[in-house]
Amino acid sequence: AMELDVDVDAVPEGTVVFAPEPLLRIQGPLIQCQILETALLNLLNFQTLVATKAARICLAAGDDPVLEFGLRRAQGIDGGIAASRAAYVGGCAATSNLLAGEIFGIPVRGTQAHSYVMSFDDEREAFETYGRAMPNNCIFLVDTYNTLKGVRHAVEVAKQLRREGIEMTGIRLDSGDLAELSQEARRMLDKAGFPHTVIAASNELDEWQIAKLKGQGATIGLWGVGTRLATAYDQPALDGVYKLAAIRGPGEPWRHRIKLSEEDPAKGTLPGIHQARRYALDGRWVGDVIYDVERSKNGPEEVRKLADAGTFELPEGAYTAYDLLLPIYRDGKRVYTVPSTEAARKRALEELDRLPEEVRSLTEPASYPLGIDTRVLELRDALAQEHRSEDE
Amino acid sequence: AMELDVDVDAVPEGTVVFAPEPLLRIQGPLIQCQILETALLNLLNFQTLVATKAARICLAAGDDPVLEFGLRRAQGIDGGIAASRAAYVGGCAATSNLLAGEIFGIPVRGTQAHSYVMSFDDEREAFETYGRAMPNNCIFLVDTYNTLKGVRHAVEVAKQLRREGIEMTGIRLDSGDLAELSQEARRMLDKAGFPHTVIAASNELDEWQIAKLKGQGATIGLWGVGTRLATAYDQPALDGVYKLAAIRGPGEPWRHRIKLSEEDPAKGTLPGIHQARRYALDGRWVGDVIYDVERSKNGPEEVRKLADAGTFELPEGAYTAYDLLLPIYRDGKRVYTVPSTEAARKRALEELDRLPEEVRSLTEPASYPLGIDTRVLELRDALAQEHRSEDE
Repeated sequence: AMELDVDVDAVPEGTVVFAPEPLLRIQGPLIQCQILETALLNLLNFQTLVATKAARICLAAGDDPVLEFGLRRAQGIDGGIAASRAAYVGGCAATSNLLAGEIFGIPVRGTQAHSYVMSFDDEREAFETYGRAMPNNCIFLVDTYNTLKGVRHAVEVAKQLRREGIEMTGIRLDSGDLAELSQEARRMLDKAGFPHTVIAASNELDEWQIAKLKGQGATIGLWGVGTRLATAYDQPALDGVYKLAAIRGPGEPWRHRIKLSEEDPAKGTLPGIHQARRYALDGRWVGDVIYDVERSKNGPEEVRKLADAGTFELPEGAYTAYDLLLPIYRDGKRVYTVPSTEAARKRALEELDRLPEEVRSLTEPASYPLGIDTRVLELRDALAQEHRSEDE
Repeated sequence: AMELDVDVDAVPEGTVVFAPEPLLRIQGPLIQCQILETALLNLLNFQTLVATKAARICLAAGDDPVLEFGLRRAQGIDGGIAASRAAYVGGCAATSNLLAGEIFGIPVRGTQAHSYVMSFDDEREAFETYGRAMPNNCIFLVDTYNTLKGVRHAVEVAKQLRREGIEMTGIRLDSGDLAELSQEARRMLDKAGFPHTVIAASNELDEWQIAKLKGQGATIGLWGVGTRLATAYDQPALDGVYKLAAIRGPGEPWRHRIKLSEEDPAKGTLPGIHQARRYALDGRWVGDVIYDVERSKNGPEEVRKLADAGTFELPEGAYTAYDLLLPIYRDGKRVYTVPSTEAARKRALEELDRLPEEVRSLTEPASYPLGIDTRVLELRDALAQEHRSEDE
């Protein structure tokens, strides 16, 4: 056991963070801060990544629920458990990961498996047995042999079950042309008297596939998303870093630090004791500004955009502003009440709603506006100049 | 606690497997086999993926050692630990993941960090202190401010340390044009009397970047590979599946099963009780064949390639052949001695050497030859026919 007396200020859990830094500020003895580095980066990078991916997938799915199905392809068992939780916070309705459900109180949902169907001699028998075993939650998997024949079998069985007072919840497609098959299945279900049976789909889905299927008129109302969500397949790592920004000896003033990486300015860092302030106008966010809490005690005054020379304009009108980083640990003791997974999810979804429309766009989203207080930039430039002139 | 009396036959750890199936055969009561499904898929899919990625990266690096640096970006903490182990089995020389080192006995290696350099007022002081702290293992990170100035500082400090009997092990580049900077650094080091100082490099490396840098004449002798290895960045999931192939009641004969997925034949499965036999000629592998141990007790007789109608030719001459699946569990008891991580690595590297050259190619590798015994295919076709004619 090790005692740390590190101070941590972080963006509260569930908050959607679009600014690249700072997600958190760690202050403490150097060796203790170093011990935290890798674990914190691992936790924050991966879970932020999956929550963001889930938010995008749910955005594409619109009002349709998205179920997270990723554990069998996740990177490690706890990678899968963390992914299930992050996916739920980011907007998924449930997970098929029973352990994550148990640990975090996430709703668990699933459908019939191919092996269930294949364990019976006849597909209809498999549907019938499953329907009776899961009378309020029976989604029949219809593509084990032939999808449309599977739908016919599901309808046959559902009629029988209905006579017993059991209603078929849905059918699931897992292969083939999902747009075409869902339309044909919808016609068959409607015609047979099952207009409320939901059509679920899975098969290497992500936000792009879902948007494409919706564009093709797919009549899918429930999306099972596994591999591409739990691994954030098309960008499986978030490049968050953990950098020294200031150091001091006992009783000394701060000595500010930068990493310059002159050959690759994108890897440079900002010096100082940072806080991030968020500006909102009419309930919508307009941007965040990084400032140094010691040099600008009352918050940012003059602000520039990070990437170019243009001025970041503070919004006109009666904007509100608040700081994002809250104290989590003080002297090694937690001073922050960890919200439930449910509360974190609620908060994340509320905050997603407050994003500028163009930032939430699935295709070519705008960057979330990020400004830097000019005093941080002045400090950075002065330190850079010092390093450059040092021993030439 | 749960008692399983499942039989598992698997490819021994460290064996290189190129056939898509079967990696393992599980036999037992249905519910027990189902309980194992997700955990087994998660473990096998991810670790096979990372070991394969490591093998490719090490292939690109040739005789240069590759260090695995991925934990901070890995998917979950145990995702990172599993990745470190798999990367070592696949050919990496060491990891920066101390916990994985402790658990699996993997060599741990690393370099100076940016935060170490930045914790000092002066880069030279940081090198000097580090050199004295790690006298036999000091790789100076030279790009915190300006790479070539960092190399000059490293040389200055190394000359001082040499007078004290301490030799600089290496320098590490982490940004900028690594080919150009390594060449210039090599010239500076050689000229200053440090021809044996190794140049290490990192920065979003993978097998493609390493091959490209070597093509550009980079003088890098040690590769630190993190994110793109630990997450298998450009293909972060392996699509291994777990499918029911046969079922029987007590005292009954096997009833064989297939998943047809007519709309997507690639998702179809092979029925039967499978084994995989590997053929080798002059110490090199020529291909694997899947057969049904009950239908072909003496092994495959007539063989076809999986994907097309051509005949897979058994090699001419004095070939050797052996079955890949070995018993791991019998009646829920382990009957297989788990090799050490070191032994698994040795075996994997020996077996990689036995692959056909064209399969080991970095760019456009040939598929490893895979055949299916014709009796498995006949069984599949008969079952498919049964399903198709069933209730038309």
